[in-house]
Amino acid sequence: MLIAPYSESFNPPRRTLMGPGPSDVYPEVLAAQAKPTIGHLDPVFVAMMDELKALIQYAFQTTNAMTLAVSAPGSAGMETCFVNLVEPGEKVIVCRNGVFGERMRQNVERVGAIAVVVDNEWGEAVNVDAVATALAANPDAKFLAFVHAETSTGALSDAKALCALAKQHDCISIVDAVTSLGGVELRVDEWGIDAIYSGSQKCLSCVPGLSPVSFSPAAVEKMKARKTPVQSWFLDQTLVMGYWTGEASGKRSYHHTAPVNALYALHESLRLLSIEGLEHAWQRHADMHQVLRHGLEALGLKFVVTEADRLPQLNAVYIPDGIDDAKVRKQLLENYNLEIGAGLGALAGKAWRIGLMGYAARRENVALCLKALEEVLA
Amino acid sequence: MLIAPYSESFNPPRRTLMGPGPSDVYPEVLAAQAKPTIGHLDPVFVAMMDELKALIQYAFQTTNAMTLAVSAPGSAGMETCFVNLVEPGEKVIVCRNGVFGERMRQNVERVGAIAVVVDNEWGEAVNVDAVATALAANPDAKFLAFVHAETSTGALSDAKALCALAKQHDCISIVDAVTSLGGVELRVDEWGIDAIYSGSQKCLSCVPGLSPVSFSPAAVEKMKARKTPVQSWFLDQTLVMGYWTGEASGKRSYHHTAPVNALYALHESLRLLSIEGLEHAWQRHADMHQVLRHGLEALGLKFVVTEADRLPQLNAVYIPDGIDDAKVRKQLLENYNLEIGAGLGALAGKAWRIGLMGYAARRENVALCLKALEEVLA
Repeated sequence: MLIAPYSESFNPPRRTLMGPGPSDVYPEVLAAQAKPTIGHLDPVFVAMMDELKALIQYAFQTTNAMTLAVSAPGSAGMETCFVNLVEPGEKVIVCRNGVFGERMRQNVERVGAIAVVVDNEWGEAVNVDAVATALAANPDAKFLAFVHAETSTGALSDAKALCALAKQHDCISIVDAVTSLGGVELRVDEWGIDAIYSGSQKCLSCVPGLSPVSFSPAAVEKMKARKTPVQSWFLDQTLVMGYWTGEASGKRSYHHTAPVNALYALHESLRLLSIEGLEHAWQRHADMHQVLRHGLEALGLKFVVTEADRLPQLNAVYIPDGIDDAKVRKQLLENYNLEIGAGLGALAGKAWRIGLMGYAARRENVALCLKALEEVLA
Repeated sequence: MLIAPYSESFNPPRRTLMGPGPSDVYPEVLAAQAKPTIGHLDPVFVAMMDELKALIQYAFQTTNAMTLAVSAPGSAGMETCFVNLVEPGEKVIVCRNGVFGERMRQNVERVGAIAVVVDNEWGEAVNVDAVATALAANPDAKFLAFVHAETSTGALSDAKALCALAKQHDCISIVDAVTSLGGVELRVDEWGIDAIYSGSQKCLSCVPGLSPVSFSPAAVEKMKARKTPVQSWFLDQTLVMGYWTGEASGKRSYHHTAPVNALYALHESLRLLSIEGLEHAWQRHADMHQVLRHGLEALGLKFVVTEADRLPQLNAVYIPDGIDDAKVRKQLLENYNLEIGAGLGALAGKAWRIGLMGYAARRENVALCLKALEEVLA
């Protein structure tokens, strides 16, 4: 026998999470998650899931019947959209203005489909005109995929205009709303979004590990018309929906064991969002961003993203010349228990990403962040 | 705006979970999970992950460097093994003696590989001689895949003999240990298992949603020699390992946001297992099974699986003639807060599955189950 390693129970420090996610989790959500586990086919659990579905629909502002939470993080949500909708050989216009657009491209290629990339500089929003040109030049394209709120740069793209373009060109739109959901205006039905995925750990302030998704009737029709099987068994939505919605008989069929306690947590976080009200939550993020923004500018920090395209919930600022990136973040973490994010991809070592997501978007957090940065940068 | 649905906080009843999983979760694990969320790149979290890796290695009895928890349930662990190891056109011997062997076959086909199925009746262990014959008849087979503990029937197969056969025929073994890990003898290194996956929600008595996996050096070599990219981005282990082990520099690279709180829970559940000791845990499952077995037989219930091949932690018994399956389970749930499992697949409506998994394998649970069944069946 290999002997057992010795470990004490893990006791994490209490941090203030103002990075790119996970964000600060509502105390109520942590408490909800610790409630006793029950069976994933228990009628009481199943009733909770019906409520959860309605709450996800509210957050997305959709009446789509195929609305659920994928039992894995946001990147699995992304993969869920691509593997269920896109078939080998099909053409997808992919907008790339940061890490997650590039990840979309990789997903398209792993499906055996063709990605036509529309590039923008990191920190820029997706250029709507360039997308219009690409759609016109590729009449055989079946999908338009883009990131609504690019977590790697803090740029917000015009989802409404992009989805309208997709519709004009008979394309199904696939939208990454990992960082946008709950933090900024997002209207799935009104804007005609066909497939959308998000993450639990950003502006919903739930624990990481789940990915809310929703598919329009047109997207569902595309799935049903597939000629090839979905390459992933685990993410195959036609199988998963047997569990989430049940058959005509009302009986839910087993697909995989649902992450019961994480779903309790998501239910509670969406419930808190529904009580605050989506529009109030969007406004709170915008307000807190303004306070943070003025404070950061007073410290001489410059934003990566131009004001018009800036996400309130993800503030990327350039690291001033001569400042040691890692040392600053280490001091913030060790001396103030404050986490801010490092730069990612093209911005690694060049920018910090300060998150104001969900429960983290509060005056006390903004004040802590500004004062701690002022002291550490002094 | 679509208006917000009204939901109260969800308050699950306290159940005793004696189905096929999720099993009763240790109270310590629920408490661990509710600890404050910290960042997935926080040095304190990363140190916890190092401990967690050692604890998973202990549970599997392996020194495999590529040992981690997939950020999704056991069926994603299954898919992780198949999509990372098996390439299109390769041949896999798949043993099918229940639902999960069939699911393996579907995974093989979705990879574009060839499944050669060795069938056994539901309730039987995998026939080692039949596998030897199949391996001899298919010298081009590269993999042998089987389920160690078939959750749909309660049959235990001889993993040691099957993996020895695989080795003789130069095949990589892929083993489903979702229900076996922690409940019955399992020795990854000693038995020469190459790829193995399990689930958090069975004999580990952790919350559902994670899948511990481990890959031998031979399996890792096979992955590295791939000619085609892994079809899943989310499950691509070469990318995931950049986060779990870090590069040579010791820096961990971001892949996806780890399910932080669920990993706290897994750490705590494996810590409790390491304190009890694996062999003690195996013995406890065997002992509780004997008590339950005698009680069930005294009630006139007959086991699906022959005594020699029976899993202690999953007891499938035939529903007596004239008994209303759904009504009995409903009464147990509503009157005793006791969950037992329905039959699955070929055993749907014909058997109950009574779990004795992890924290649920205690005298008080066995007593409750026997007395409640006695009263309901009276």
